[in-house]
Amino acid sequence: MAVLAAAVPDVQGSRDTRQIPIQKVGVRGLRSPVRIRAREGGWQATVADVQMYVDLDAGQKGAHMSRFLELLGEGWVIDVAGLRELLRQTAQRLQAQTAHVELRFPFFMQKRAPVSGSQSLLDYEVSLSGVLRAGHAEVSVQVAVPVTSLCPCSKAISRYGAHNQRSRVTVTVRSAGFIWIEELIELVEAQACCELYPLLKRADEQYVTEKAYDNPKFVEDMVRDVAACLEQDERVLGYAVACENFESIHNHSAYALIEKDCAR
Amino acid sequence: MAVLAAAVPDVQGSRDTRQIPIQKVGVRGLRSPVRIRAREGGWQATVADVQMYVDLDAGQKGAHMSRFLELLGEGWVIDVAGLRELLRQTAQRLQAQTAHVELRFPFFMQKRAPVSGSQSLLDYEVSLSGVLRAGHAEVSVQVAVPVTSLCPCSKAISRYGAHNQRSRVTVTVRSAGFIWIEELIELVEAQACCELYPLLKRADEQYVTEKAYDNPKFVEDMVRDVAACLEQDERVLGYAVACENFESIHNHSAYALIEKDCAR
Amino acid sequence: MAVLAAAVPDVQGSRDTRQIPIQKVGVRGLRSPVRIRAREGGWQATVADVQMYVDLDAGQKGAHMSRFLELLGEGWVIDVAGLRELLRQTAQRLQAQTAHVELRFPFFMQKRAPVSGSQSLLDYEVSLSGVLRAGHAEVSVQVAVPVTSLCPCSKAISRYGAHNQRSRVTVTVRSAGFIWIEELIELVEAQACCELYPLLKRADEQYVTEKAYDNPKFVEDMVRDVAACLEQDERVLGYAVACENFESIHNHSAYALIEKDCAR
Amino acid sequence: MAVLAAAVPDVQGSRDTRQIPIQKVGVRGLRSPVRIRAREGGWQATVADVQMYVDLDAGQKGAHMSRFLELLGEGWVIDVAGLRELLRQTAQRLQAQTAHVELRFPFFMQKRAPVSGSQSLLDYEVSLSGVLRAGHAEVSVQVAVPVTSLCPCSKAISRYGAHNQRSRVTVTVRSAGFIWIEELIELVEAQACCELYPLLKRADEQYVTEKAYDNPKFVEDMVRDVAACLEQDERVLGYAVACENFESIHNHSAYALIEKDCAR
Repeated sequence: MAVLAAAVPDVQGSRDTRQIPIQKVGVRGLRSPVRIRAREGGWQATVADVQMYVDLDAGQKGAHMSRFLELLGEGWVIDVAGLRELLRQTAQRLQAQTAHVELRFPFFMQKRAPVSGSQSLLDYEVSLSGVLRAGHAEVSVQVAVPVTSLCPCSKAISRYGAHNQRSRVTVTVRSAGFIWIEELIELVEAQACCELYPLLKRADEQYVTEKAYDNPKFVEDMVRDVAACLEQDERVLGYAVACENFESIHNHSAYALIEKDCAR
Repeated sequence: MAVLAAAVPDVQGSRDTRQIPIQKVGVRGLRSPVRIRAREGGWQATVADVQMYVDLDAGQKGAHMSRFLELLGEGWVIDVAGLRELLRQTAQRLQAQTAHVELRFPFFMQKRAPVSGSQSLLDYEVSLSGVLRAGHAEVSVQVAVPVTSLCPCSKAISRYGAHNQRSRVTVTVRSAGFIWIEELIELVEAQACCELYPLLKRADEQYVTEKAYDNPKFVEDMVRDVAACLEQDERVLGYAVACENFESIHNHSAYALIEKDCAR
Repeated sequence: MAVLAAAVPDVQGSRDTRQIPIQKVGVRGLRSPVRIRAREGGWQATVADVQMYVDLDAGQKGAHMSRFLELLGEGWVIDVAGLRELLRQTAQRLQAQTAHVELRFPFFMQKRAPVSGSQSLLDYEVSLSGVLRAGHAEVSVQVAVPVTSLCPCSKAISRYGAHNQRSRVTVTVRSAGFIWIEELIELVEAQACCELYPLLKRADEQYVTEKAYDNPKFVEDMVRDVAACLEQDERVLGYAVACENFESIHNHSAYALIEKDCAR
Repeated sequence: MAVLAAAVPDVQGSRDTRQIPIQKVGVRGLRSPVRIRAREGGWQATVADVQMYVDLDAGQKGAHMSRFLELLGEGWVIDVAGLRELLRQTAQRLQAQTAHVELRFPFFMQKRAPVSGSQSLLDYEVSLSGVLRAGHAEVSVQVAVPVTSLCPCSKAISRYGAHNQRSRVTVTVRSAGFIWIEELIELVEAQACCELYPLLKRADEQYVTEKAYDNPKFVEDMVRDVAACLEQDERVLGYAVACENFESIHNHSAYALIEKDCAR
């Protein structure tokens, strides 16, 4: 085999004459088991969809794609520090100036039903992504939090009832200091008309129904209230807050977005 | 070109020695503009996702896939009669005993808001599918109708309000006589807690909020009420009715299904 | 709270007068961390999309949905025996005659590149589903295996090259005896033009390119060859084998299906 | 009804005291039949997924969402001029400074097979999007073009064959002058290892197989070659070119991206 391998030409490593640099080249659509550092200690096992890219000099024909796979196979426990190290090694192993890594995964938190105290696990979509440029890594965290929303207009104009629905609030944060995924999720849930629970007994169902009715918000209110909280957190350098309501009276969504110093 | 073509071997047409017949072989994931016959006269232009299959004898190596594309390119106006003819020609052109065709497409109906009368178009997912066996074609229609559902339990146990959400009711019908897509959609909407409208002014929003509150149903109620209507239609030979509620208080769905003489 | 809870009516438990039984009622779209028993010993942590249903008597208004969540929260290690027990408890806790459970999850196997021996994890979509009827549980396993396919017609008619692409082979098996998920995956990969690997060095890439070219198969060949293997396994009571080629020369798929005693 | 409507409070129109402006508020997930201006004359009927947003002043509580639906219902024939007019009217009707509209739809072009001349329709994903700021509208066009890619490394290192697969090349262009959707699609197809056709007879299949083998390109080559073409078009102010190869030897994609003056 050694003989064969020696004879194999390195097409990717050859010179390119078009003189066009490439901002991102790499792999996507990779699935990998990952371990995510948890606030309560230890880590949580989940499955990530992974993207890994580097930049490519104008003069080089191609990236050595298999090196991304070698790196990913090394069994990382991911948190912000782990992601920074993965970015650094990606740039180094691919001999690149810039590296991009994104991991997107379901993340679970234990919820206690508000009256019965029944426990169950709620799932959230989370993304950790980072970019390394000129030796400096910048990491951002995104959480998508499903909540209940109840329409203030519907409540105000109706003699009884109010339309409500599931919404998804997506918060992306660039930060100076460490922020737990769990902190961001709780920050969003505290602003919702009502938070969600997988397991609700009847007394809990009464509680969440009445709580949402007592606490109506438009998509506009939701993104403003979450943005106001993020403004008060000194660790936050920039953010984007989006809310999408899967309207129960329409077949389309209502949507609002506030962005501040947060390049996507 | 004639010379080249004559020299090209027909691999698909060669004999196969494994002696295993194949129930379905063909193409899927094809997108095609189609015209769907409309109740109000004329037709509606939309875009279908198409599947076309035939069976294959134990002795033949492969199907001639390009013939499906030739057939599809002939500019069909689709209704039940059109689908029967497409099935017949598919079996004939592919020299098969059995043919399967499915077209799945968004379909639009004009809605009038209940108070203001404002008009707008609501979209539905519709599927027309058919199978031809031994010269006999059987066609079925499926409509997926988005509606509002409001929870009877939440209403009964709460002092005010009631959780509600968007639901999707999917009805599949095998029929002896002709049934319009529009008829099936209206049959489902008449059973919903409230139907959906793209465009609602404030007076309309009051109306739909109060109507849903006055008319609470579980997923179980919804499938029973639609099934009861289908039982009274003599054209219906078999049916399946499913309802999925995208619960506003959970991050999962509630679901119910009634099937009767309706092989999927 | 006890006072409140005592006052809460049980709407689901009330009588229903429509006299229509429901075949399936329950929850879907639930995500849950699960542990899947592994052939090499121990288990593999992954995340499942879960569906759980029971039947409902003609006389009962609704199912007690929260009980599905209580059951799911009990931390199951899933294999065929575990699934049978979960089915039994679901029917019991919901006081039903019939129970259906399906778990769909990414599953990983360690692959060794064919020349370099480099190791990496490949992902597969797996589903374990079961139905309990009249005290008897029947379980089926489905694996979706991504492979390389190379077209025999393209190879035969071209002076050089042959179009090839990624394909997905989906095998569903009802069995009398125990079959590992890993066994089914390996059975499919052994029949492919070539199997896939996440990590390939250059000598490996030469190997897989030439192997696929030496071993061309149509979708029809692929389903026949897998079916022939399943026919020789005495544990297999029924099966379905589908192959979908994401054609590199078209924007649609080629597809074939063989089913035998395998109700979907 | 007039009495009722007069009594209905305008919650959205009330003052907001949080003093947080919102960059985007509106509707998404709307499906609408649309007509797209075609190069050959007339227009093409298709179905669009629509997003429409405006900005919202710090002092206003909410947007009047129903006005987006009124606008959309007015039966637009969409091209760049039509989109500019829709943006202008959206800002005006919602009394906003900024308006965003995006329409995403399948678009079809007639293809002639390279040897037989057989005709069939190929589908492309196209997006037209625009933003109006301070009275100035900027429109961009995105086309996603499916093509065949063949790996230069695999060809160079193997004694016969070469792995190939379907790829998707996505080009986004901001332009000063008018550019047809059809022009962008043809620009991409001219750079592909080989373009795709729905309907290929055997002589065509030989042609496309050999053409791809004669014309190997990495993802890196593909984005560089398309970028070089766009650089020579004076109408192009900025662009992004991405290529994703659905690798036939892996279960993940290879990806490359070149961006120039093209904010996403």
